Order: sequence, then structure tokens, then C-alpha cells
Amino acid sequence: MADFTGNHILSVNQFDRDAIDKVFTVADSMAPYAKRQKRTEVLNGAILGNLFFEPSTRTRVSFGTAFNLLGGEVRETTGMDNSALAKGESLYDTARVLSGYSDIIAMRHPFAGSVAEFAEGSRVPVINGGDGANEHPTQALLDLFTIKRELEYHGQHIDGLHIAMIGDLRYGRTVHSLCKLLCLYKNIHFTLISPKELGMPQPIIDTVANAGHKLTITEQLEGNMDADICYQTRIQEERFPSQDEANKFRGKFRLNQDIYTKHFQSKTVIMHPLPRDSRMEANELDNDLNLNPKLAIFRQTDNGVLVRMALFALTLGVENLVSKYERDVIWHSNKSS
Amino acid sequence: MADFTGNHILSVNQFDRDAIDKVFTVADSMAPYAKRQKRTEVLNGAILGNLFFEPSTRTRVSFGTAFNLLGGEVRETTGMDNSALAKGESLYDTARVLSGYSDIIAMRHPFAGSVAEFAEGSRVPVINGGDGANEHPTQALLDLFTIKRELEYHGQHIDGLHIAMIGDLRYGRTVHSLCKLLCLYKNIHFTLISPKELGMPQPIIDTVANAGHKLTITEQLEGNMDADICYQTRIQEERFPSQDEANKFRGKFRLNQDIYTKHFQSKTVIMHPLPRDSRMEANELDNDLNLNPKLAIFRQTDNGVLVRMALFALTLGVENLVSKYERDVIWHSNKSS
Amino acid sequence: MADFTGNHILSVNQFDRDAIDKVFTVADSMAPYAKRQKRTEVLNGAILGNLFFEPSTRTRVSFGTAFNLLGGEVRETTGMDNSALAKGESLYDTARVLSGYSDIIAMRHPFAGSVAEFAEGSRVPVINGGDGANEHPTQALLDLFTIKRELEYHGQHIDGLHIAMIGDLRYGRTVHSLCKLLCLYKNIHFTLISPKELGMPQPIIDTVANAGHKLTITEQLEGNMDADICYQTRIQEERFPSQDEANKFRGKFRLNQDIYTKHFQSKTVIMHPLPRDSRMEANELDNDLNLNPKLAIFRQTDNGVLVRMALFALTLGVENLVSKYERDVIWHSNKSS
Repeated sequence: MADFTGNHILSVNQFDRDAIDKVFTVADSMAPYAKRQKRTEVLNGAILGNLFFEPSTRTRVSFGTAFNLLGGEVRETTGMDNSALAKGESLYDTARVLSGYSDIIAMRHPFAGSVAEFAEGSRVPVINGGDGANEHPTQALLDLFTIKRELEYHGQHIDGLHIAMIGDLRYGRTVHSLCKLLCLYKNIHFTLISPKELGMPQPIIDTVANAGHKLTITEQLEGNMDADICYQTRIQEERFPSQDEANKFRGKFRLNQDIYTKHFQSKTVIMHPLPRDSRMEANELDNDLNLNPKLAIFRQTDNGVLVRMALFALTLGVENLVSKYERDVIWHSNKSS
Repeated sequence: MADFTGNHILSVNQFDRDAIDKVFTVADSMAPYAKRQKRTEVLNGAILGNLFFEPSTRTRVSFGTAFNLLGGEVRETTGMDNSALAKGESLYDTARVLSGYSDIIAMRHPFAGSVAEFAEGSRVPVINGGDGANEHPTQALLDLFTIKRELEYHGQHIDGLHIAMIGDLRYGRTVHSLCKLLCLYKNIHFTLISPKELGMPQPIIDTVANAGHKLTITEQLEGNMDADICYQTRIQEERFPSQDEANKFRGKFRLNQDIYTKHFQSKTVIMHPLPRDSRMEANELDNDLNLNPKLAIFRQTDNGVLVRMALFALTLGVENLVSKYERDVIWHSNKSS
Repeated sequence: MADFTGNHILSVNQFDRDAIDKVFTVADSMAPYAKRQKRTEVLNGAILGNLFFEPSTRTRVSFGTAFNLLGGEVRETTGMDNSALAKGESLYDTARVLSGYSDIIAMRHPFAGSVAEFAEGSRVPVINGGDGANEHPTQALLDLFTIKRELEYHGQHIDGLHIAMIGDLRYGRTVHSLCKLLCLYKNIHFTLISPKELGMPQPIIDTVANAGHKLTITEQLEGNMDADICYQTRIQEERFPSQDEANKFRGKFRLNQDIYTKHFQSKTVIMHPLPRDSRMEANELDNDLNLNPKLAIFRQTDNGVLVRMALFALTLGVENLVSKYERDVIWHSNKSS
């Protein structure tokens, strides 16, 4: 992926380290616009087709916001009940039609492979916003971008990183993609902490091992780790054969301030793909961590806007023109400070 | 509330008379833009998060339109079924995430207190668009603004107003808020007309009485009143213990042209929070009033745009800059005349 | 309809040949903007109320895109479940309120006549986006515009056209409207191919015959036709009294490359109102036609944007000002080439 212009973004497998570096450089340059210190109209007149055949409020709004922040307009659709897809239209037809209405498409769909199939019919670039259990590349990129930014605080780089991944590593799409991306870097130490039933799939373990990275696999938090990043995930109770099984695991892979202090060092950054479930007695990420400055979960979602802005700018070939179409921001913004 | 900039608008209790005067002065200044005589781009690049976790077409569109008329963009969400809230995410988390995507948020939610709870997590100002049975401050403000504007036709002021409120005064959130706001003025005469079961709650009656205003409470329309305003409400039949009870009241608090002529003077302005139910035989506000020039119900909804524009401009600190970023309106508008 | 400015577009019956010529001339002039060769801001600040009380993704997005391409903003609503209409509000009230929020309205509604009823209450122009089995005038106009454009390739005009209509001609709203519009032209030859049960309604046959056009009515594809246009429709199986009846017809009115070659000439343009159903074994329009350059179905939907842009420009009186408010397109577009 030497040149992004006009191309689809469907999978993390498309990215080599050069491509990632490019995305992150552009994402960094988007900060003044996302913080409302400056306004750009580089995409004035461009239309994003924000097609969420599977609803997802935050991802949909994040894509739409990113496009607005570049000066573009958003047309969108949520759900599938009344769409032509539900009447038996092929993804090819839907893509041919809807790509006639926009300059670029962000798409989420419940079925694995559907976004790539759609992209074949599309006459404009398609960015995968999640296709079922398959891929959600912008989430993986924003996770990696967050890791890079958090480490930079300490003058550190991704090469040499120690990351602990906790919880449901079997079904958690985000940790799989993140592992793949991290394999593009050097000397990563992965500590994988999960119940045996929810362990990281073997193909991903093989990928990590074959790339020469260090792997520690364990069934629960133990001792004090020197992890730079603690990536927590949600254990979805519906994954278990019975509620009894689920209850057994509940609370074994949670994180709160006490557990954090016991098992991690004060430098360890806490991440999570969100949403976190606040209904359960034992949450995977307790609210008492909200005051911990290392809790990066909301910096992750903020970074998502930067990464999506970068992908839009690169795909539409305007990454070097953004500042040329600047305007002043007039209104008071809590974000500028 | 000396300065609106950067603050939430959650409750009518936040407003003193100075604050209201400020909102109404700005709202008046918005008329040329709402009438499409002029166009402003003062909020070019700003994003409204229009979050309607409880659907409400007209309120949602009114907020969105108001923001567009100031030059801003709108990202929105309707309903809660597929949102992270439904997956157990706390309002705090939702607020932290979604406030990262916008400059200001308008929010409706079915549960009382939810908008204030959300506001605590939000990093941008939040305007309450209705939180269940609790508050709907922009409706109260647009009602009061309409009263002010209608009275000005006759060179009259809100001080000294005689307002008749009819129908379901017990559950009607709008009349409660309106009473509170009117208490900030002098010498108001409230005539409250409702079935005993649907009377104004005692705390509000106390507030009105303690502020030294005149109160007349009656169970049905009687004689000819010198009311300046007749504020009609919808009697929601589901409030009654049985359909028989509902039928008993049906038609006893209706208004049509004959009843209007009998009980009111030709100066009396007719208001209603809308929607009015046109399915019943005996409507609370008959269609034969549509030709009555004192029927102000659609001026109310029009005024809602002005009031919401004012709140956005004040909260984002641009109320004095609106005319500086003017453009000409090019297209033909039925509204300009 | 000498002047479009400020008027509703409710029915194909409003259009005479002059009006159609005007729409098509303006639609042609919209191509550079739809192809992203140029950007116009002629409707900067104007708001479209895109009210889809009956959901229809492609029509809704097409209207919204058309308005964005002219520089305007879109506020929209999808479905009716939570709207005031569902609470018993009259269409008149809904129209009075919502027309206060926008400069022009595009509306779809499941009930015949509803859009015209709504238009009576509206204070801004209303464009019918489909009212049940009644009318969908923009579809008819885009179909006719497509016919015009396809014929122009060969230096041909609509006068003298031979069009074959296939499938469900009884319930297919689009073919009825198209027949009416074609009657405004000269020497049209209509070949109507359908099962007897699904034949063209007699009033439309009478209209065509009375206007002096040539009519051929048949129950299945026969021989090789010199049709310029083959307009295929979807046979909705739910129209049949039983599944057995439906199965009988299934496949008898389909089109694939072999059938096309047998019954049509290589000049014959294939049209369809979309969506086409790809689930059935025997589709009305097989995917093997996708490579046939005469398959115009996606050019139809593209043309829909041009026609809707034209109707917006005409209705808002800016059709001659579009190029005056031009800007350059900065981003890379697959559409420009």
C-alpha cells in the first residue's frame, strides 16, 4: 500500500510499516483541527456515505465527525430492516447504486466478508467500519496509534513494547487485529492473560511467535508486571456454555485500582475497546480507575477521530492540502485548551 | 447564569430574569437568519451532537435546523436499541466518548435526571432536550418567548399577564416549567382549569402563591375571561384509571371556535405544546381554530428555532459575531416575505 | 407548470412537455457537479427536510446527496413509529410544523394521497418521494431522462421510440407513470409483455391508445424485437393468490444474456426501477447482464441525482445561478474521469 489514493481500506493485512507510519503522521497533523484550534474546508463538497447496516452509534458518529472536520458532508443509513438488501438485492447492486451518491463510503455490516464484497461493486473507496467477526481495521489502527502516543510521553517507541492482553482473547476481534499490527514492529513482548477457554487463537499465536516476538501465556493475573500497556477486553457472557460457567470467570479478569496497583506499575497505560459494561457487580474495568491518569480509554476514542480523518484525507488524496484550506475557528471550544 | 459560554442548559431553574432577557434578545436577533433574509456561517465547522436516545422528530429536527442556520454541522442518533447504553455502558462513559466527537450536545433521554448525569461526563456543553417527566427547558423558553412576542403586538409586557392553563395540569411537564419561569415576572394571574384528578401539583401552586401572583383554580371553563393567553394541553387518556374515566373528561376541556368565542376575548392567544391529537371526536384544539389569527401554535414551533439558535450562540460564545459572518441568501424562500 | 419556483412537485400529471424539457436541460447542466468536476455552493445555508415516513434508503440518500451537491444541508427523519403522526397528529399539523424548519421538503409516506395532503399544510415546496401505490414522480422523470440520454448516444430522440415493458405492469407504479410521461411525445410504440393477471390497467392503455400511440400487447417474449428500450420490472410474488401461481410465472419474464440476445437487438437498452431480487433462482434480471454495456440500471440511479438536483434548483429558483457560486474540487474523485 504505497499510495492510498482511491483505494479501499478493508483489512489490517493491507498495512505494512510504511503505510502505518504514513497514516500516523497524517493523523498527528489532524490534531489542531480535531481540537478546534483551526478549521479546514479541504473536503468542501465531498460526501461520505456512512452506511451502517449494523448499527453502532460511536463508530458511526466518529466516522461522520471525522469527515465533517475535514469540511465534508455526511449522508448515512442505520440498520437493514427496510433497505433493499432486505428485499434480496445483492451487495454488488447496493454498492453500485450507493457509490453513485458519495465520494467515499464507510460501511459496517453484520456478516464477515460483506464489506469486501460490497467494495467490489463500489465505484468509490470503501473503508471497513467492521464486518461481523472478521475485521475492524480502524479500531486496530486507533489502538496502535494510541499506544504510540502514550509511549511517546516517556520518549518510548513501539519497538520493544511489553503489552498485556486480558480477558476474552478468543472472540475479541480487536486484540487479534492489534496483534497482527504489532507484529510489524520489533521485539514486542505479549503477555496473554485469559481463561483457557477464551485463549488467543493458535494462528495468531503462531504469527506472533514466528515473527520472533516474546510470548507469555497465563490464566490469570500474577505478580507485578512491567507491562507498558494493559489491554483489557470485555468477557461476553453469552460466549459461555452456561451462566454457571460465566459466573465462574466473572471477576477473575477484572481490573480496578487495587488490582492495577498490585499487578502493574504506575507507568502502565490501561486500554479497552469500549463499551465497558457497568451493570455487573464485578466490572472488567471499574469506575474507580476513572481518576487514574493512565486510563487511556477516552483518549482511544478521541484518537479514533484523528485516525479516521487521516484515512479519509489519504484515500481522497488531500493529506498535503488540509492546511491550505484553513479558516479560523470563531466559537468558544472546550477542546482548544 | 451570568455567562452562558461553555455551560450546560439543563433546567429552567438555572434561569433568572437577566438570563431570560439575554436569551430573548439574542433570539430576536436570529429572526433574519431563520427567515432566510440573511445567512450566517458563524459556526462553520462546529458540530452538534444531536443525541435523541428517546425519539422526537420535531424537537430533534428543530435543534438540528437551528444549528445548521448558524452554519454548523449535525451528527445525530435516534433511539437506544443498539447503542452502547443498551449494552450496559454508563451514561458517564457514553458522555465522555460522544463529547469527544462534537462541540455541543443536544440530548433527549426517556429517564428523569439522565441528561444531568450525562452532562457530568461530557467535555462539551449539553442542552437538555427533554429527560422524561423531568425537564424540557427549551420548550419552556420557547413558550415564554412566544408569550412575550404575542403580547408585544399589543404593546403589552409579560408583567401583568393573565394566563389560563387548561387540561392535564398534573402530568403536563410544559405547564410546570412555564409556571416556574413566569414566577420570575410580576403580577401574573394564573387561571388553572382542569379536572380535579389532573390538577396542578401543590408544590407549583405554592411557588406561584408564595411569589405573590394571583391564582384562580376551577374545574371547567366558565364565563368570559380576560385572559391574554390560553395555554391548552393534551389530556392523555392513558393517565386515567379506566377508559370510562377518560371518556368522562373527554370533550370537557376541549377548545373550538365556539367555545373560544364564548369563554375568551378576541385578543386571547391560543397556545399548545403540540402535537395535538386529531383522531378523537372531541379534540382538545379543533381544526376550526386553524383560521383564527390568535392560534399561535405554529408560531410557537417557529419560535423554537430562534430560541435554540440563541442558546447555541450563547453557549458557544458567538452571540455578537453572528452578523460578522454573513452571506447573502441566493435562493427563493417562501419564508423571507 | 410554466414556473417551478415555490411550487410543489406531487405528480407526473403536473408536467407538460415544456416543463419536462426545462427539467432535463437543467439536469444536464448538473452533470459537472455530480461528477465532482466542479463544486457549487448556490444553496449554501438552505435546508432540505428529507422526511421519509416510509423508509427507502436509496431514494432518501439520493435526495440528500442531490441537495448536498448544490451546497445545502439536510435534516431528515426515517420511519413513523415515534413521530407525532403516530400519536394522532394530522398531516396538516405535521406539515405546518416541519415546514417551519426547512426551505424545501422531500417526502415519502406509505399512504396514497398523503404527500399532497401534507403539501397543503406546508409553507415550503414539497417534492413527492413516493406516496404508496400512488405516485413517485422523480422516479418517472429519471426513467424518462435516462431514456433520453441513452437514445442521444445514437443521435435518436424520444419521439418515435419503441419501448418494451415486461413483467408486473399491473402493480408497477413506475411503468404507469412512465407511460403517462411518454404520452407527451410523438409516435411511441409500446410493447407490453406480462401475464394476463398482471397486465397494464385499462385506463393507462386507453390513455396511450387515445394519444395515437402504437400498442402491442403480448403474454410473453416472442421473436426478435426492434425495441430501443426494454423496461423490466419486478414480479412481486406476494401479488399472486398462491405460491403455486407465483411459481408458474417465475422465470417466464426473466431476462438474462441469452434471452436478451434472442429477443432483442444489441442496441436495446435495459432498464429496471431497482432493487432487483437476486435471491431467486430465476431472476428478473440476471447478473450475467452486468457486463452488457446496454444495462442502464446504474446509470438510472446516477441520473436520479441529476434530476433531483434539477428539481431542487428549479423549485428554489437558482437554476441559472449554479455556476456563479462555483468552487474548485480539491480532492481526488473516481467520478471525475
